[in-house]
Amino acid sequence: MSKETSARLDRVNSQWRIARRPTGDNVQQQDFSLHEENVPACGDGQVLLKTLYLNLAPVMRMYMMGEAAAREKPLNIGDVIHGRGVAEVVESRHSDYQVGDIVQGQLGWQTYKTSSMSAAELMRKIPDRGVSYGLSLGPLGMTGFSAYFGFIDRGKPRSGDTLVVSAAAGGVGSIVIQLAKIYGCRVIGIAGGPKKCNSISQWCDNTIDYRNENVATRLEQLLPNGFDIYFDNVGGDTLDACMDNMNTGARIVLCGSISEYTSDEPYGLKNYARLRNTNASMHGFFVYNHEQQFAQAEADLARWILSGELTPLVDVVEGFKAMPEGLARLYAHKNIGPAYCRVQGDCYDQQ
Amino acid sequence: MSKETSARLDRVNSQWRIARRPTGDNVQQQDFSLHEENVPACGDGQVLLKTLYLNLAPVMRMYMMGEAAAREKPLNIGDVIHGRGVAEVVESRHSDYQVGDIVQGQLGWQTYKTSSMSAAELMRKIPDRGVSYGLSLGPLGMTGFSAYFGFIDRGKPRSGDTLVVSAAAGGVGSIVIQLAKIYGCRVIGIAGGPKKCNSISQWCDNTIDYRNENVATRLEQLLPNGFDIYFDNVGGDTLDACMDNMNTGARIVLCGSISEYTSDEPYGLKNYARLRNTNASMHGFFVYNHEQQFAQAEADLARWILSGELTPLVDVVEGFKAMPEGLARLYAHKNIGPAYCRVQGDCYDQQ
Repeated sequence: MSKETSARLDRVNSQWRIARRPTGDNVQQQDFSLHEENVPACGDGQVLLKTLYLNLAPVMRMYMMGEAAAREKPLNIGDVIHGRGVAEVVESRHSDYQVGDIVQGQLGWQTYKTSSMSAAELMRKIPDRGVSYGLSLGPLGMTGFSAYFGFIDRGKPRSGDTLVVSAAAGGVGSIVIQLAKIYGCRVIGIAGGPKKCNSISQWCDNTIDYRNENVATRLEQLLPNGFDIYFDNVGGDTLDACMDNMNTGARIVLCGSISEYTSDEPYGLKNYARLRNTNASMHGFFVYNHEQQFAQAEADLARWILSGELTPLVDVVEGFKAMPEGLARLYAHKNIGPAYCRVQGDCYDQQ
Repeated sequence: MSKETSARLDRVNSQWRIARRPTGDNVQQQDFSLHEENVPACGDGQVLLKTLYLNLAPVMRMYMMGEAAAREKPLNIGDVIHGRGVAEVVESRHSDYQVGDIVQGQLGWQTYKTSSMSAAELMRKIPDRGVSYGLSLGPLGMTGFSAYFGFIDRGKPRSGDTLVVSAAAGGVGSIVIQLAKIYGCRVIGIAGGPKKCNSISQWCDNTIDYRNENVATRLEQLLPNGFDIYFDNVGGDTLDACMDNMNTGARIVLCGSISEYTSDEPYGLKNYARLRNTNASMHGFFVYNHEQQFAQAEADLARWILSGELTPLVDVVEGFKAMPEGLARLYAHKNIGPAYCRVQGDCYDQQ
């Protein structure tokens, strides 16, 4: 059974719980506490899942601040931190699942979980595509799907369009810039620092290092006519700066606002009225509203990965104990590509 | 010659010029000065135009503040105030125009003008539709076209949609609410004060008096699922309040921001990120980008007026001398329907 990669069953379920609300603009080790309890018993109609990978995403600080977001409820102090992950079925009393199946969904920050595999837990089986199952937390999961639906469905790219992407070395951004090349766009990637800019330069016609360059001024130099699509992963003043440089009919895709997850006050967008003079538009989207099209997105993205047109950039943190540190890396802007933690890993993982 | 309504030619061209930049949140009589000069001579290839009607629009304060807007240059102190109007050709040395033709375009705040009828002056002949030519400054002009393209092209109304309109008793708003009824929408109109709310109640399923009611709370009560279209004529905190009440896939049409024409600082829009969770979008538009479709819009709007489906609400100020006072009425929110000044009037005007 080739899918069975880690069926050894420990007795202990390790959990990261929230110890206190984060303050400042990052999370700290003391915001978390490590618990150990017995692995729960698998009830009738349930499966016991063993965690292989856990996702790390900027939105997690929102849950910790007590806000509902991305289909998760606010966290109370003492709760297991919300998080999606990849797991292996190690025991099954559910007719649709057998031992060795690999699934993805709401696991929480823990090494075991029992589940009735309900839609509410956003659980789904992951097909074996000959690549690490961890990629389903990046290019073959919500990160890739956000890039896919945001860029294709909302951005409506045409060959020759100019695309600007913020957080272009991040999870979604690093996929968007590669999709844009597949679609024949000119690509300008905004990222922080020379290391990140270098990591994406092979897919960008130009990069802007927002830490060392003025974004608005550089965009004006590079795009005298403005952009056709701006894929926004950061919100805030970068979004305002970009709105100074819109071509007629420009589309702005609002994907994420990492700058806002760490801010107590919502940012006041000053340039929204400029949408008027340029006949431009701004499109929000929530990836789960596209659930019916996930299979199509996964198939397309996997095809591009296998053909070499899409190179997954992933930022893998090793071991369950490193989860808090791995999350803090995101707000310190240290990750390149989508970040996740290898809790157990799988047979494809060392490729 | 039935079109010739006011061919008597005075010797004096009266002009309103800008005497100083407005301060505060309105314009004052002292911001303007009245000049008289000789009627200019009609050169070769030119026509002499006699003003019949002059438009009054919130954007005029932008010109006076020294900002370019709506295809007009910033005003310098001493300049004739920019403004569109309707005029009669009283002398013609231009092969395409004859005495008695009625035209619309950039006249400025003055009673006579010579013009080579160039595209730069946005001049066009107005067909005789059996209604006051003044309506081409309202329902049959840019005001009507803004309502038409904003609502139909950007709002993409479907029968059964719920529409919210701010400044619903204003120039654009009073047309949008009537178009929405033609399209089978449920209409909620926001206006200031009982008098304005009463003036639009025949076309609204509900009205909200923003001076005496909390807009966000009322919208929440009236629309548990939120609106499908919000036609925004005011920007600012009303736009923010509306963004708390969006249905999935909602469209926001950004038409005007009267709240911003009178503010020195741009408003910071706090709720823009809510577009994400609802798959909503925000569409700016600039009516002159639709110039190729103006004839179609005028024909449709005239048809609806003649059939009685669209009732023009107009706010007519009497006499050229009343122009500054007429403009101030707008920022004091006193007008109901699009505002213009009857300088000379026409044969249809007393209907």
